[in-house]
Amino acid sequence: MASSKQGKVLLAYSGGLDTSCILAWLIEQGYEVVAFMADVGQEEDFEAARSKALKCGASGFFLEDMKKEFVEELIYPAVQCNAIYENVYLLGTSLARPVIARGMIEVALREKCDFVSHGCTGKGNDQVRFELAFYGLAPTIKVVAPWRLPEFYNRFAGRSDLLAYAAEKGIPVVQTAAKPWSTDENLFHISYEAGILEDPNTTPPDDMWKLTTSPQRAPEEPEQVHIEFAKGLPVKVTYPASGKTVTGSVEIFLSLNALARKHGVGRIDIVENRFIGVKSRGCYESPAGTILRAAHMDLEGMTLDRNVRALRDQFITTSFSQILYNGFFFSPEREFITAAIPASQKTVNGLVRLSCYKGNVTIEGRDSDEGLYDAKFSSMDEMGGFEPTATTGFIDISSIRIKAWARAK
Amino acid sequence: MASSKQGKVLLAYSGGLDTSCILAWLIEQGYEVVAFMADVGQEEDFEAARSKALKCGASGFFLEDMKKEFVEELIYPAVQCNAIYENVYLLGTSLARPVIARGMIEVALREKCDFVSHGCTGKGNDQVRFELAFYGLAPTIKVVAPWRLPEFYNRFAGRSDLLAYAAEKGIPVVQTAAKPWSTDENLFHISYEAGILEDPNTTPPDDMWKLTTSPQRAPEEPEQVHIEFAKGLPVKVTYPASGKTVTGSVEIFLSLNALARKHGVGRIDIVENRFIGVKSRGCYESPAGTILRAAHMDLEGMTLDRNVRALRDQFITTSFSQILYNGFFFSPEREFITAAIPASQKTVNGLVRLSCYKGNVTIEGRDSDEGLYDAKFSSMDEMGGFEPTATTGFIDISSIRIKAWARAK
Amino acid sequence: MASSKQGKVLLAYSGGLDTSCILAWLIEQGYEVVAFMADVGQEEDFEAARSKALKCGASGFFLEDMKKEFVEELIYPAVQCNAIYENVYLLGTSLARPVIARGMIEVALREKCDFVSHGCTGKGNDQVRFELAFYGLAPTIKVVAPWRLPEFYNRFAGRSDLLAYAAEKGIPVVQTAAKPWSTDENLFHISYEAGILEDPNTTPPDDMWKLTTSPQRAPEEPEQVHIEFAKGLPVKVTYPASGKTVTGSVEIFLSLNALARKHGVGRIDIVENRFIGVKSRGCYESPAGTILRAAHMDLEGMTLDRNVRALRDQFITTSFSQILYNGFFFSPEREFITAAIPASQKTVNGLVRLSCYKGNVTIEGRDSDEGLYDAKFSSMDEMGGFEPTATTGFIDISSIRIKAWARAK
Amino acid sequence: MASSKQGKVLLAYSGGLDTSCILAWLIEQGYEVVAFMADVGQEEDFEAARSKALKCGASGFFLEDMKKEFVEELIYPAVQCNAIYENVYLLGTSLARPVIARGMIEVALREKCDFVSHGCTGKGNDQVRFELAFYGLAPTIKVVAPWRLPEFYNRFAGRSDLLAYAAEKGIPVVQTAAKPWSTDENLFHISYEAGILEDPNTTPPDDMWKLTTSPQRAPEEPEQVHIEFAKGLPVKVTYPASGKTVTGSVEIFLSLNALARKHGVGRIDIVENRFIGVKSRGCYESPAGTILRAAHMDLEGMTLDRNVRALRDQFITTSFSQILYNGFFFSPEREFITAAIPASQKTVNGLVRLSCYKGNVTIEGRDSDEGLYDAKFSSMDEMGGFEPTATTGFIDISSIRIKAWARAK
Repeated sequence: MASSKQGKVLLAYSGGLDTSCILAWLIEQGYEVVAFMADVGQEEDFEAARSKALKCGASGFFLEDMKKEFVEELIYPAVQCNAIYENVYLLGTSLARPVIARGMIEVALREKCDFVSHGCTGKGNDQVRFELAFYGLAPTIKVVAPWRLPEFYNRFAGRSDLLAYAAEKGIPVVQTAAKPWSTDENLFHISYEAGILEDPNTTPPDDMWKLTTSPQRAPEEPEQVHIEFAKGLPVKVTYPASGKTVTGSVEIFLSLNALARKHGVGRIDIVENRFIGVKSRGCYESPAGTILRAAHMDLEGMTLDRNVRALRDQFITTSFSQILYNGFFFSPEREFITAAIPASQKTVNGLVRLSCYKGNVTIEGRDSDEGLYDAKFSSMDEMGGFEPTATTGFIDISSIRIKAWARAK
Repeated sequence: MASSKQGKVLLAYSGGLDTSCILAWLIEQGYEVVAFMADVGQEEDFEAARSKALKCGASGFFLEDMKKEFVEELIYPAVQCNAIYENVYLLGTSLARPVIARGMIEVALREKCDFVSHGCTGKGNDQVRFELAFYGLAPTIKVVAPWRLPEFYNRFAGRSDLLAYAAEKGIPVVQTAAKPWSTDENLFHISYEAGILEDPNTTPPDDMWKLTTSPQRAPEEPEQVHIEFAKGLPVKVTYPASGKTVTGSVEIFLSLNALARKHGVGRIDIVENRFIGVKSRGCYESPAGTILRAAHMDLEGMTLDRNVRALRDQFITTSFSQILYNGFFFSPEREFITAAIPASQKTVNGLVRLSCYKGNVTIEGRDSDEGLYDAKFSSMDEMGGFEPTATTGFIDISSIRIKAWARAK
Repeated sequence: MASSKQGKVLLAYSGGLDTSCILAWLIEQGYEVVAFMADVGQEEDFEAARSKALKCGASGFFLEDMKKEFVEELIYPAVQCNAIYENVYLLGTSLARPVIARGMIEVALREKCDFVSHGCTGKGNDQVRFELAFYGLAPTIKVVAPWRLPEFYNRFAGRSDLLAYAAEKGIPVVQTAAKPWSTDENLFHISYEAGILEDPNTTPPDDMWKLTTSPQRAPEEPEQVHIEFAKGLPVKVTYPASGKTVTGSVEIFLSLNALARKHGVGRIDIVENRFIGVKSRGCYESPAGTILRAAHMDLEGMTLDRNVRALRDQFITTSFSQILYNGFFFSPEREFITAAIPASQKTVNGLVRLSCYKGNVTIEGRDSDEGLYDAKFSSMDEMGGFEPTATTGFIDISSIRIKAWARAK
Repeated sequence: MASSKQGKVLLAYSGGLDTSCILAWLIEQGYEVVAFMADVGQEEDFEAARSKALKCGASGFFLEDMKKEFVEELIYPAVQCNAIYENVYLLGTSLARPVIARGMIEVALREKCDFVSHGCTGKGNDQVRFELAFYGLAPTIKVVAPWRLPEFYNRFAGRSDLLAYAAEKGIPVVQTAAKPWSTDENLFHISYEAGILEDPNTTPPDDMWKLTTSPQRAPEEPEQVHIEFAKGLPVKVTYPASGKTVTGSVEIFLSLNALARKHGVGRIDIVENRFIGVKSRGCYESPAGTILRAAHMDLEGMTLDRNVRALRDQFITTSFSQILYNGFFFSPEREFITAAIPASQKTVNGLVRLSCYKGNVTIEGRDSDEGLYDAKFSSMDEMGGFEPTATTGFIDISSIRIKAWARAK
């Protein structure tokens, strides 16, 4: 049992070199340390991590399966509002942080921890996302962020310092060559950043991409899928080729992940703006998220009123995405913004048919019983719905303002 | 020479059955008719159209080459603000209408026409776009819109009525089978709508797509291109495989069109919301536009300040796109909105490297001398730029509000 | 009983010359006419109106008391989101139209009317508000708008034509001199427009203002009132001078109306932009609305999170106001927008103290138990809440982006 | 001459106790200190301040008259976009900071100072505004903020510590009773905060208000003024009672200040949200600013296109106000936002007639040659401008979407 002059700290543990050294270092500083891992769908040997944490001196280890709440409480609202950051990034890491933080705070309160801790660097978004979430859930919790403490970061100036410390503390180190980039993975996505990617002009090497097949090596034939939505959420997926159907929130997401990964769907590479005001290059794979966003937006074209769509795009999509990216999920503004989502999705019911092929998601058709689309009204080829003369009146009135301005010029 | 009891009308002439019948019918109603065609890059036999117009009884025919002003005055501002309608449509038709309308009004005023006329249906966007543009340029001009006049649309209830009238008037009709959809083409895009496409669940047939190769039949190898931007506009394109470079506004656009068409880039299929309030299904091919939007947005990630980007996205991108879609290019609000574009593009200078492959546009890297990206600041791997302890203060202050709310809950 | 070759029409009846002539004229055209009046708090002799309608030939007369739903369903949501049009107009007429239209549609459906009709002019906002509301509630209802029918407006080109027709039809005409402006009144406000007010440079004569005392003739002493809010709504009003308290939604509103009217609060005079695109000069008195808006906004300063306030101001206030002004209350976008109001008002609980004096509403203090205001944090005079050094970190991080831009310049 | 082991620092000096002690303390720390004062119209004995600074040990004293650039570069753009923070605060302090900071940086660079310093507390907005402005103008300048340095704020925990230090250092102290609040004054406004005002339920005492007469003691008769605007800026003010006219940017502002002060115009009292995330109670007097905002908004009703106004309100007004409040005047987003202001003000030309009376600003009429207001179009009483039947078409088309939604419900 660790000593505890300083108090008890719950550490977000990954099983890697950094958080193992932090674990040992915190004990060295006089803390009792409990390790926490969240299963958000990442590929990980959780049992190995447990052993390692305990071997490093943790007085406890808690693994929480948060996949279902990750999908239902974070990913699906993001699908409903077509969330995207700076036009490109689907927010995979941002969406996972709130559920992880909530899981941590639940354990921390239950286990009567005085502190929570994490291994995020002092320059990234994740430290902010974790800590704002901690404070939003437990405003009096205290945070230990070693990578922002001079006594820590001055001591561990490079990887060799960490390796030496691990050797000293008997922390097992996996002898694989370190990749020249960092990753963060969950069932929504994987991110790649840092290392060689810090030169924004360096093309990511082919073997970096882990989740998806390269479009060039993807199957030569398109594969079709039908996605049925109810109130803006996917409720059934059907593969017409096999007749296979999938239901259940997590099951649908994983099934679309498998489809997209096979066909090379969901890779992106951007320079984005971090909350702390620096630009940062990131590469991401978001397989199912890419399909769902395309399908959901398409169905909204068919089923959502024009003005609701425009107001939602302008206010909710952007705000929700920024709020999530910056780490303000547990905030009054997020509660406010999401209160309007259900009202926007009442009519988003129907089926979208699409195919995946070598990186492309192609919409092939859509159907809905909502009745907002009415061929009789839109048909160019026949009369129906309204009189053409009405349009003359519409244009006359719409142009009053324009004519006044043109005359004034 | 046509008689002119009613006055002189300038007709937007396409050379097709509809506008030929309109031409003849207007003469029958007592107008003198002058025909107008704009060359905005569509594939068209302009000489055949001229002969046909004159044969139909036009007292004059004016063809204006508007490709350069189309690219420089409409397409390039749209590129600079990443214009897009309802997340999907790149506005190809909307962007062409203002230059065509301006060309018409110039001729109409010069030729002392009392009226302008067009062959747009009474249910679509284009009638609104043309007429609002006419009124914005010449507030006292009068418009004849036959498809909104009962005496016209009751007489010509179907295609057979038009064919019979053409036969009666000696209007030559090209004996090709009519496509089961309508198209509008210019150098930016082609649109397909109506006919079989009015069922939103009908997948467009492969042979509908005219501009682009099918991704499945596109080359098996990616092709790279480097695009250099100055103040948000493409100023040089280089093909590294051949070393070929292209400069000049129209030349660059046509060159990227050729690249994208070859690689199946730029097809979309959506249900969109027309200005007049009906939903409508449209398919579009926007080859070069798709490449330029991806490249420009990527370079903005590298070179545009975060807050400028967010404000521009929220205010200009959406507004500009809606204004253009709805036909308000010649309006005070469009002048207002576009006044802010140059200020947003000062720093958007640099080079984007990308490749096209079977429908995909893949960013491979980007470079800029602007200096807003600074690896020293964003590096996760090394100190530099600012102290990690500063972030602690930043989070402390950023969480004051969150803690107050959490305590109040 | 009126004949009914054309069908049965429910007419929005005011008791005045215009709608009386319309009533008689509709009967002349072969309609059966039922008259409808809504009591939304205007000063009116409803019994006299009933007699007159029946005398004009109406086959029925329905008076509905809608004051409570007007206050609770329209006015109070407007208070909660600080609704205002073009920075000045508190939307008094716009807010009344939806309840009146809903009352009409209920009667029209119950009485099996084929049509609804109104006496609004063809240039104003109210015709649009009424008809859009009718269609949003009963999409197949038909509307007869006589002032937009050439057979009506050509026949009644001036007031003398209406008077002659009234004489012919035996319609009683009150022999008071017509005011040189039009008014619309309800318990929220009175509007003045048209006539001499059409010159925007004409100062309204003192005797035009009907609801409020002139500030110059208002009492020489301020009068205090305390307004208690729960979830953004006034729930109790106390007059400290007398100790009198008022509760109840309508009662509170009427009590504040009396206070404001006495002290000359709530007069405005603007040139506004109508939905149909013309500018229009209007004068308004909105006594209680002016007090409530000031008090509610003040309490939000004390109790609403900064970011919720900013998003709400940008997202809901403007949209709600435009939607109401333009007549889209019964629309998907209004349902969408108002869905977010309750989430914004959870913490808007507390008491505002203010005084009225010669046109002024002066905030004297406010109190709340919500705890979002904390003197310990904001105090300039003492330490507390957070460390001053944290602000250094906050500024360091906030300036990274600014320094990068300044260096790049 | 002060010693300078640490380097040379330019101190924003006010002549008061705090900055005098800071001046002496900085010298004690080994800095050479130069004192800076900006004349932004505050009531101040600048010569006394100069003597005191030099007596405290300053090696130089620079007084810059910045009134003209304050009015023309800050206040007038704010008038043009109707700037306001949280619906109430006219930004008087926020507007002055950029000119003061720019004046300081000019002197600091000219005098080869290594540092700039100020006496702002560690909890307020002004420290942020000053420092962000410094960094935006001179990204490599270093800042000394004593109230955020533990060695300073621990030593001077209360006013008595400052008084003792002043006595020790021979700093003259004016023996007036300290007011129980802090103020900041310039020609635009005066602010009151802290002290007894930190209880938001405390009504400010009558004798706190310094700039304006109490409405109760203001003249019994309204006073009229005519303000002529060109491109949204006041260019001439006329007092019809006396026939007196005023021109010149500063002169007009000061003249309106005098008028408003006499009539008790411009007092406010709010709880606002500081940039650093705490709520704060402030009282302000903004005499001329209140008149100009009312007049400018009124003229925009007469002369600005509806859609330009709506976009400007949503796009520029809010952003400009937040940017200024938070201290980001020297930033890319401010440059971007203000680039659109001139395009919004082209037509804002004309004259507004108004009167001031006991706290009220009452619009009495307005006139303009722009022609966007046209009584012929808006008249309810006569035909003109457009056909009433056109409105029927307008409503038919505008309701298509609403009917589709109503049917779908």
